[in-house]
Amino acid sequence: MTGMSGYCDWIAVDWGTSHLRAWAMQGDKPRAEARSDAGMGTLDPTGFEPALLALVEPWMGAAPIDVLMCGMVGSRQGWAEAPYRPVPCTPLGPEHGRPATRDGRLRVRIVPGLKQAHPADVMRGEETQIAGFLATHANFDGVLCLPGTHTKWVQVSAGEVVSFRTFMTGEMFALLSRQSVLRHSVGAGWDDDAFDEAVGSTLARPETLAQRLFTIRAVGLLSGPEPGRATATLSGVLLGAELAASRPYWLGQRVAVIGATDPACSYIAALKLQGVDPEVADGDAMVLAGLVAARSMAKAPV
Amino acid sequence: MTGMSGYCDWIAVDWGTSHLRAWAMQGDKPRAEARSDAGMGTLDPTGFEPALLALVEPWMGAAPIDVLMCGMVGSRQGWAEAPYRPVPCTPLGPEHGRPATRDGRLRVRIVPGLKQAHPADVMRGEETQIAGFLATHANFDGVLCLPGTHTKWVQVSAGEVVSFRTFMTGEMFALLSRQSVLRHSVGAGWDDDAFDEAVGSTLARPETLAQRLFTIRAVGLLSGPEPGRATATLSGVLLGAELAASRPYWLGQRVAVIGATDPACSYIAALKLQGVDPEVADGDAMVLAGLVAARSMAKAPV
Repeated sequence: MTGMSGYCDWIAVDWGTSHLRAWAMQGDKPRAEARSDAGMGTLDPTGFEPALLALVEPWMGAAPIDVLMCGMVGSRQGWAEAPYRPVPCTPLGPEHGRPATRDGRLRVRIVPGLKQAHPADVMRGEETQIAGFLATHANFDGVLCLPGTHTKWVQVSAGEVVSFRTFMTGEMFALLSRQSVLRHSVGAGWDDDAFDEAVGSTLARPETLAQRLFTIRAVGLLSGPEPGRATATLSGVLLGAELAASRPYWLGQRVAVIGATDPACSYIAALKLQGVDPEVADGDAMVLAGLVAARSMAKAPV
Repeated sequence: MTGMSGYCDWIAVDWGTSHLRAWAMQGDKPRAEARSDAGMGTLDPTGFEPALLALVEPWMGAAPIDVLMCGMVGSRQGWAEAPYRPVPCTPLGPEHGRPATRDGRLRVRIVPGLKQAHPADVMRGEETQIAGFLATHANFDGVLCLPGTHTKWVQVSAGEVVSFRTFMTGEMFALLSRQSVLRHSVGAGWDDDAFDEAVGSTLARPETLAQRLFTIRAVGLLSGPEPGRATATLSGVLLGAELAASRPYWLGQRVAVIGATDPACSYIAALKLQGVDPEVADGDAMVLAGLVAARSMAKAPV
């Protein structure tokens, strides 16, 4: 049997561009968790196995052990490419990326991402959260919103991902608030009224997005700095534009947001302003539930 | 008389955040030009006078000399604040910022920027180009487009700036193409068809802006890299969104674009796609003509 002599019977891994997280698993329960900043974006091809072992070797015994991974680790620039599966499809399938390892105890599999031909789109990592959500919310038909650097809106029906769209709102907010001229205007604090107004007016008139951004700077110059108000306005303008573009995904739909902290909170607040009261699921819990589902599908060579 | 013993009788200066340019002037004609990268953004308060002298001292004699400046040098973080003048107003007025100098020969004046209360907006430097345009294009009534990091659209009537709007399109393009995930997709080259399609479709449906950005990345991943096509698409999407927001400024208006190189060329191409055939004026020539106009208005203490 796999890993009998060790601390756990398999290992779950979420390996993104900027983070690495691992769980020591016994069946579908985590016994321990470890994390590091050895994201795949920081590693060259020879760096993956040492970075993994540095985190999980304390959990391993002498016997081989299955390691199930999701995230950008499966991209072409990652450890071993797990080619995208085309939608419509279930979030998980039998195919996996299988990197070669020097340590014969590691039996590594990587969950593939999903691709969509028209309009062109891709995801890696979110498919596992979607699988986790579907495993824990039986018979869900509707739309999942996964906020992040690149937010995904995903239409799910009969256990399959039907279509999805990616929005760079999180990355745009980070660039504009840290590196554009708006960095002089935004700062600590938050103003709910400014956020609500910005979401609503940009959603109603998305063509005004381009002109509303510099206004944030000009207001600060002419009326004095209000960093919290500026931050909330920038967030609201960008989110209003995203909601205008993603309207078919949420208008009149059953919506669930995966994530319970920022930036998910802003999405939940913005959706409530539109009369949508989304279900909310914890992002970490969905990753783990998805990796458990992937493990149960993997026909492990014992 | 001012500067009689020197090489020129006054000095014109365009001092922005990232550049410093000076011209040795005889009447309204430049005798020489000098430039450096000592932009005001790189200087602390004590650094302005030495940076200026390093460039213009070779042109100076023993007598005092007028130095007329425009640009961010007149901002609160610049050498001496030249408070914004409120529109509607002529682009130039009698007020100037007057920094103290250690070198008694320097008689420095800084042209103020313009501000607009509703919607809040500001400009510094462009007012001088506008004055130069009006000085060289008698009786122009219409709209000026000044492309740049922060593009300005300016409604001009009867010699006054009536209203204006600023768009961060240039800064957004720089951030997205150099620092976002799209940096992996864009690159050298250009595709006119992709630009035209992106301008047209984003202008027609500006609410799609947010979703079109990541598509540029996904197309590259799924169909192979086409850096020139990606660059032209990103430019077209952002410019289409700006044209949607600035429509009242160009639809059915007499339009002139100030600038003859990138990014002005993209604006000219995009406007022509909409059936607008703008006049074009050289940006450098307009700065100089504007400083000549400012000099003639300055009641210099001889």
